[in-house]
Amino acid sequence: MSGTMKKRSAKAGLPPGSLVYVGEERTQRTRVSVIDFDEQHVDEREIERIEDCVAFKESASVSWIDVDETREPGTVAMFGKVLAFHPLMQEDILATDQRAKLEDHGEYVYVVLKMLSWDEKADCMENEQLSLVLGRNYVITFQERAGDFFDPLRRRIREGLGPARRQRADYLAYSILDLVVDHYFLVLEKLGERIERVEDRVMTHPRQELLREIHDLKREMLFVRKSVWPVKEVIASLRHLDSRLISRATSPYLRDLQDHIEQVLEGVETYQNLLSDMLAAYLSTLSNRTNTVMRVLAVFSAVFMPLTFVTGIFGMNFKHMPVLELEWGFPVTLAAMVAIGGLMVAFFLRRRWL
Amino acid sequence: MSGTMKKRSAKAGLPPGSLVYVGEERTQRTRVSVIDFDEQHVDEREIERIEDCVAFKESASVSWIDVDETREPGTVAMFGKVLAFHPLMQEDILATDQRAKLEDHGEYVYVVLKMLSWDEKADCMENEQLSLVLGRNYVITFQERAGDFFDPLRRRIREGLGPARRQRADYLAYSILDLVVDHYFLVLEKLGERIERVEDRVMTHPRQELLREIHDLKREMLFVRKSVWPVKEVIASLRHLDSRLISRATSPYLRDLQDHIEQVLEGVETYQNLLSDMLAAYLSTLSNRTNTVMRVLAVFSAVFMPLTFVTGIFGMNFKHMPVLELEWGFPVTLAAMVAIGGLMVAFFLRRRWL
Amino acid sequence: MSGTMKKRSAKAGLPPGSLVYVGEERTQRTRVSVIDFDEQHVDEREIERIEDCVAFKESASVSWIDVDETREPGTVAMFGKVLAFHPLMQEDILATDQRAKLEDHGEYVYVVLKMLSWDEKADCMENEQLSLVLGRNYVITFQERAGDFFDPLRRRIREGLGPARRQRADYLAYSILDLVVDHYFLVLEKLGERIERVEDRVMTHPRQELLREIHDLKREMLFVRKSVWPVKEVIASLRHLDSRLISRATSPYLRDLQDHIEQVLEGVETYQNLLSDMLAAYLSTLSNRTNTVMRVLAVFSAVFMPLTFVTGIFGMNFKHMPVLELEWGFPVTLAAMVAIGGLMVAFFLRRRWL
Amino acid sequence: MSGTMKKRSAKAGLPPGSLVYVGEERTQRTRVSVIDFDEQHVDEREIERIEDCVAFKESASVSWIDVDETREPGTVAMFGKVLAFHPLMQEDILATDQRAKLEDHGEYVYVVLKMLSWDEKADCMENEQLSLVLGRNYVITFQERAGDFFDPLRRRIREGLGPARRQRADYLAYSILDLVVDHYFLVLEKLGERIERVEDRVMTHPRQELLREIHDLKREMLFVRKSVWPVKEVIASLRHLDSRLISRATSPYLRDLQDHIEQVLEGVETYQNLLSDMLAAYLSTLSNRTNTVMRVLAVFSAVFMPLTFVTGIFGMNFKHMPVLELEWGFPVTLAAMVAIGGLMVAFFLRRRWL
Amino acid sequence: MSGTMKKRSAKAGLPPGSLVYVGEERTQRTRVSVIDFDEQHVDEREIERIEDCVAFKESASVSWIDVDETREPGTVAMFGKVLAFHPLMQEDILATDQRAKLEDHGEYVYVVLKMLSWDEKADCMENEQLSLVLGRNYVITFQERAGDFFDPLRRRIREGLGPARRQRADYLAYSILDLVVDHYFLVLEKLGERIERVEDRVMTHPRQELLREIHDLKREMLFVRKSVWPVKEVIASLRHLDSRLISRATSPYLRDLQDHIEQVLEGVETYQNLLSDMLAAYLSTLSNRTNTVMRVLAVFSAVFMPLTFVTGIFGMNFKHMPVLELEWGFPVTLAAMVAIGGLMVAFFLRRRWL
Repeated sequence: MSGTMKKRSAKAGLPPGSLVYVGEERTQRTRVSVIDFDEQHVDEREIERIEDCVAFKESASVSWIDVDETREPGTVAMFGKVLAFHPLMQEDILATDQRAKLEDHGEYVYVVLKMLSWDEKADCMENEQLSLVLGRNYVITFQERAGDFFDPLRRRIREGLGPARRQRADYLAYSILDLVVDHYFLVLEKLGERIERVEDRVMTHPRQELLREIHDLKREMLFVRKSVWPVKEVIASLRHLDSRLISRATSPYLRDLQDHIEQVLEGVETYQNLLSDMLAAYLSTLSNRTNTVMRVLAVFSAVFMPLTFVTGIFGMNFKHMPVLELEWGFPVTLAAMVAIGGLMVAFFLRRRWL
Repeated sequence: MSGTMKKRSAKAGLPPGSLVYVGEERTQRTRVSVIDFDEQHVDEREIERIEDCVAFKESASVSWIDVDETREPGTVAMFGKVLAFHPLMQEDILATDQRAKLEDHGEYVYVVLKMLSWDEKADCMENEQLSLVLGRNYVITFQERAGDFFDPLRRRIREGLGPARRQRADYLAYSILDLVVDHYFLVLEKLGERIERVEDRVMTHPRQELLREIHDLKREMLFVRKSVWPVKEVIASLRHLDSRLISRATSPYLRDLQDHIEQVLEGVETYQNLLSDMLAAYLSTLSNRTNTVMRVLAVFSAVFMPLTFVTGIFGMNFKHMPVLELEWGFPVTLAAMVAIGGLMVAFFLRRRWL
Repeated sequence: MSGTMKKRSAKAGLPPGSLVYVGEERTQRTRVSVIDFDEQHVDEREIERIEDCVAFKESASVSWIDVDETREPGTVAMFGKVLAFHPLMQEDILATDQRAKLEDHGEYVYVVLKMLSWDEKADCMENEQLSLVLGRNYVITFQERAGDFFDPLRRRIREGLGPARRQRADYLAYSILDLVVDHYFLVLEKLGERIERVEDRVMTHPRQELLREIHDLKREMLFVRKSVWPVKEVIASLRHLDSRLISRATSPYLRDLQDHIEQVLEGVETYQNLLSDMLAAYLSTLSNRTNTVMRVLAVFSAVFMPLTFVTGIFGMNFKHMPVLELEWGFPVTLAAMVAIGGLMVAFFLRRRWL
Repeated sequence: MSGTMKKRSAKAGLPPGSLVYVGEERTQRTRVSVIDFDEQHVDEREIERIEDCVAFKESASVSWIDVDETREPGTVAMFGKVLAFHPLMQEDILATDQRAKLEDHGEYVYVVLKMLSWDEKADCMENEQLSLVLGRNYVITFQERAGDFFDPLRRRIREGLGPARRQRADYLAYSILDLVVDHYFLVLEKLGERIERVEDRVMTHPRQELLREIHDLKREMLFVRKSVWPVKEVIASLRHLDSRLISRATSPYLRDLQDHIEQVLEGVETYQNLLSDMLAAYLSTLSNRTNTVMRVLAVFSAVFMPLTFVTGIFGMNFKHMPVLELEWGFPVTLAAMVAIGGLMVAFFLRRRWL
Repeated sequence: MSGTMKKRSAKAGLPPGSLVYVGEERTQRTRVSVIDFDEQHVDEREIERIEDCVAFKESASVSWIDVDETREPGTVAMFGKVLAFHPLMQEDILATDQRAKLEDHGEYVYVVLKMLSWDEKADCMENEQLSLVLGRNYVITFQERAGDFFDPLRRRIREGLGPARRQRADYLAYSILDLVVDHYFLVLEKLGERIERVEDRVMTHPRQELLREIHDLKREMLFVRKSVWPVKEVIASLRHLDSRLISRATSPYLRDLQDHIEQVLEGVETYQNLLSDMLAAYLSTLSNRTNTVMRVLAVFSAVFMPLTFVTGIFGMNFKHMPVLELEWGFPVTLAAMVAIGGLMVAFFLRRRWL
């Protein structure tokens, strides 16, 4: 379940900078694909030898090197060697329980954050870690899993839609982050739909299962919040990098991204409030119901206890009970019991217990 | 219902700056009206061709271009082209789930905020997004819907009431914002009236429907707060713009506006406290009632269970039950039962259960 | 009731600076009284023509112009004209739902805050708005209502008690604020007494009325807090005015005033905690009581249900029930029932339910 | 009881700087004792005439003038006159409901804080106000009550233990504050012991008295927190006084004191958490118990109601009830009733209600 | 139990800097072991005479002096004398209830923090205080207890694994802190496992013991948080020491450590949320159960009370009850009773009480 911690204990006692993959084991192979483009040309290919990256990295055109299924320490170490990454950064790429952060290494910046997406089949939230290295002419991304997350952006570059092809690496990095943030909205909407479905049932069918579902949704929201919150700071840091890596033209786009993050967080907060209110509503609906049940119980007891007592009296076997001999004893007693019952009911109606 | 998020998912994967209308579909046409005035003259008209705006924008007199029913990307893009707006700003005008913010574009500032109003017919709160562009001699406003929101201001300009005609565009922008903030007060009052109506019933008739109504009111208040809170910052940013766009004479008016926002927020907080207290009062009234019902139940059980047991004893069919033969058996038993019942009642009265 | 908002809707749509009285309608006339004094002389009088104020304002001696029952826009406008007040300030004097604030207008400062007092007759808190204008040689105060609030200070000036006569206008302003803050203490004490009276009854007689009273007290405390909180900032701003209006000698007095405000706020917080605890105590006392009632109910049911069942068995009319023929059937049955009842009671005593 | 406010209303309307003793009335006389020391000599005595203090204050050796049972305005005014204290400071010494604060008067600093101690006899917390004036060569302390609080320090000075005799007045002031802070720890420990005693009983014997005791402890903790919290700031201010009054050697000691205050506050927070948890545990233990009682009640009702109904059927007096004639009617009915009862119990056992 | 305060009262009244061991009494002897290393050699030994440390401290190679079972004031005082430590620092080493902090003494820095570890045998969290003194060429650590906590690091140094041997004392200090922080993760994981075990049982078997366990876990988490929180600040202070003691190359490692602390704190927060939710879930499961029980009770009462009343009527012994004579009286009555019971059950089924 999302929201709980990944196992890190395997790393205790190892020297710092040790490359250990923290996450679920999977069987797919690491895949490295490159898009190299400028306004005139696009070159898209998969590469086998990591050393081939160097050429792209140093070309004047913008290169986007995307590494999928990142979990082999060897591959990451190779990248680190070829592209001269700091050892701690290599460690962070593999430790997939990182908090979103930005590290400025001068020549390049390292950004790590959580990508959230919605698995339509399982109808649940997915998350994976995205590591992004932004240099002067290149962007390198490390994803935990292979997927079609970045396909719309690749298509836009390939087909030259939008301003992507005309811009530099900083705009490419922005476009990637923008896509990530768009998915935050999407996941939030999906969760919002589930919340609204639950909400409808809270007042009408307050059952135990709802309680569990509300708690699950609360935890999912907490996880979204925990993932998105530090991204705000990351984008802010990115904006405030001096002009080395981020051009003046890209800055307004990053500010826009910040506004979007703000909106996501506001949405999360709204839903968190909603969930808390739903929980309160659920509990007070239960209270209400208990109350109603109690009243019915009280009314039945109050009406029938005295009546049963009366029948008990006339059911006693005393030899000398002159009333029992009276001809109108039975109907009068019956009438009296109806009267007692009626008075009790009237009393409860007046006190609004019925 | 207000307070939940609008659908943004349609935008996921599109290039940044894509113009997509985020909001409900409506059928009315976009309408552009212009008021151009200085101390001597007023010129009020509707314009058909967006290019005609340029003339007003560049005239020395103050021009207010008001665009209603803004939802056609084409129209906004045309405005953007004609008046040279930043593409992200064009996107923001259409995305009507913006958080209130101010963007300083040098030649002009862009302000976006939520207008709240009270729909008297439906007796509920309405909200729409207002985009305001303030330049040296012009103000352009984009509203989501056509309406009579700004009519009092238009009349004041037309008839030369108050200082509006004597002032420049900054004062016009202030007047517009002042009108928006006045409506915040109005909406708050209306909600306050509903809260007070609910409050009266909480203690006297604590029914399930009230619970739902309190929750609804809480959510409305949350929405008001969410809408108004960032406006505070917007006004502060407006005040701290250097003298380019905001004159020294207008600054105190903006400070006054800030005080008003502060008052609105304080009012919201007061009502939020009131609603929380009402919820607590509702729940403890329920508890109280359950308690009362329990006591009645306990008293009936405690009084009649022993008595019915006694009648049960004398209702047994043993052959050898000498007591049954006694002449005074029945009245003595009856008297004993009255005594037992009386003692129980006395006991409960002493323990304040009745 | 204090704590809810005053009606402001009448102002929506009017031009800014419109003078509209926001508050209850009353019938008394506005009254203007002046004390003009220096170390040697005191001159105390009521004035009819507002223009007469100018002379006092400009005299070298300290003048205190006190305006009671301020609610006629005409009077305030006249003051504004005669003494050259900013239009927004005139508006604030009349709008009696202001948050405490200080406005520095260079020649003079404008301070607005809430005066709290205790109406001994109605045994409830009163509040009114005090507007104070501090210039070089004069202090002008605008009160909502006529009253004896400032009488002790007037007497001290008249009789030359304390340092008031020897000091300048800044000290006079301080003395007025000090009196206002002293009344905050007084109101807090009165509320504290009511809280303590309620507290005594919470544990002994937890009735529904207490709940309402606790909620009322909470709201009163909230109102005190809301009124006093911004005053802290006002005094701080006053202290940090440069030496133009506040002399060095008066500064320690203002710091002392800040300490007092701090103490009032701490007292409010203490009482708020107390009230929350009382509410919790009230609710858990109720729970406790429900619990006790439940136990009694359970014990009665558990003791008498089996016994009544036994009497039922021997009350059946079967032809062939040999036990009924036994000579010792009845006493043995009775003994058995006593034993069953005794065992049940013993069991409950052991589990501490009795 | 600690935690509530002292009466200040007597001061309302008096001129600022009026000396009024705020606190309980007592009958003991004010006592002034002096210790004057340097590394070679100690001179300890009680003085009668306040004017005699001046000599000590001005001597080159360190003097500690301790004033007990400070409550006579005359004495304080005399001190004020003899030692040239600011009138507001004189007022603060007498007003024993001060919030801890430091006032820098140039020649001397004035520190006021709450001394907490544990009254072993009454087994409860005591508090009194300590005013401390630190000058170049002297320390003057004003205590509310006479007591043995400072005896350990006096003995250390008298006997020359520790570095006290070798140091100057700033170290003496530190030693006094250190003693006060040590007592904070002591009081916290004593309260902690009481909390642990209560905690043991919460789960085993959740009675109403515990509730009151938890609430009392919460309030005591609040009072400790309220007393200690501002002391943090006082010590910080003391450290940041320039070298006039605090020597470089004393500064690390003050930092250490700050750490201690931090630890006290952390301890308070821990206990506050503990108390909140205890309250929650108490309430849920109650809930649990109610739950258990309910289940027993439900089981008895569910088992005996059907059985009693069966006996009722066969107890009816219809003429034509062939079943009653059957020879095996009674034993079969008995067996059926045992079966019904057994089934009910089995059902409840399976649902874990028993 | 962890989380409560240690006894400090023994120190009240002693002069500041008094060396008193605050903690549990143990019987093992203090042990001092030294590792002295540079890239070429390692020298590991235990030393008997504390004076021997001076040689290591002053050698050019990096020395790590580790003192176990620190609780004898004499030993610490000896270290203080030999190595010229500030008296207050000596006091802090022995007072094992310190809040994590860093003190900069110029020549060396003193760091104190809590080491958390998991006692596998007792399956509970252990904590002890670690004091670390970082000088130019040496690190001195004082541990409360002997243990194998630092063995992995010692082995790495001994065997020359990782960069430890090539670096200076600052990197050694970092490695020690890294090991401490790794153990924070480990402890958090272990607590997380216990939390998940409890969570599974909350919804299925909500018993009183769980409540106690949740409260215990909450307190453990609070203790972890309290221990780790100030470490954040310690690492930050360490990073911002100028280049005297921390080299530029070590700085990124410390930043990485800060990220780890951040992650631990986030994990703690997640678990705290989880525990709060579990408590809420536990309580509402209880409520639910009470509700179910109530409904069963109400249904049994409502079904059988009227029926028993009917049997009571026909069980009365009136002489004149013509119905009793009817031939079909009994079967009709039985049928009527079945009908009444059926109607009641149908009614409850419709209202979803069954």
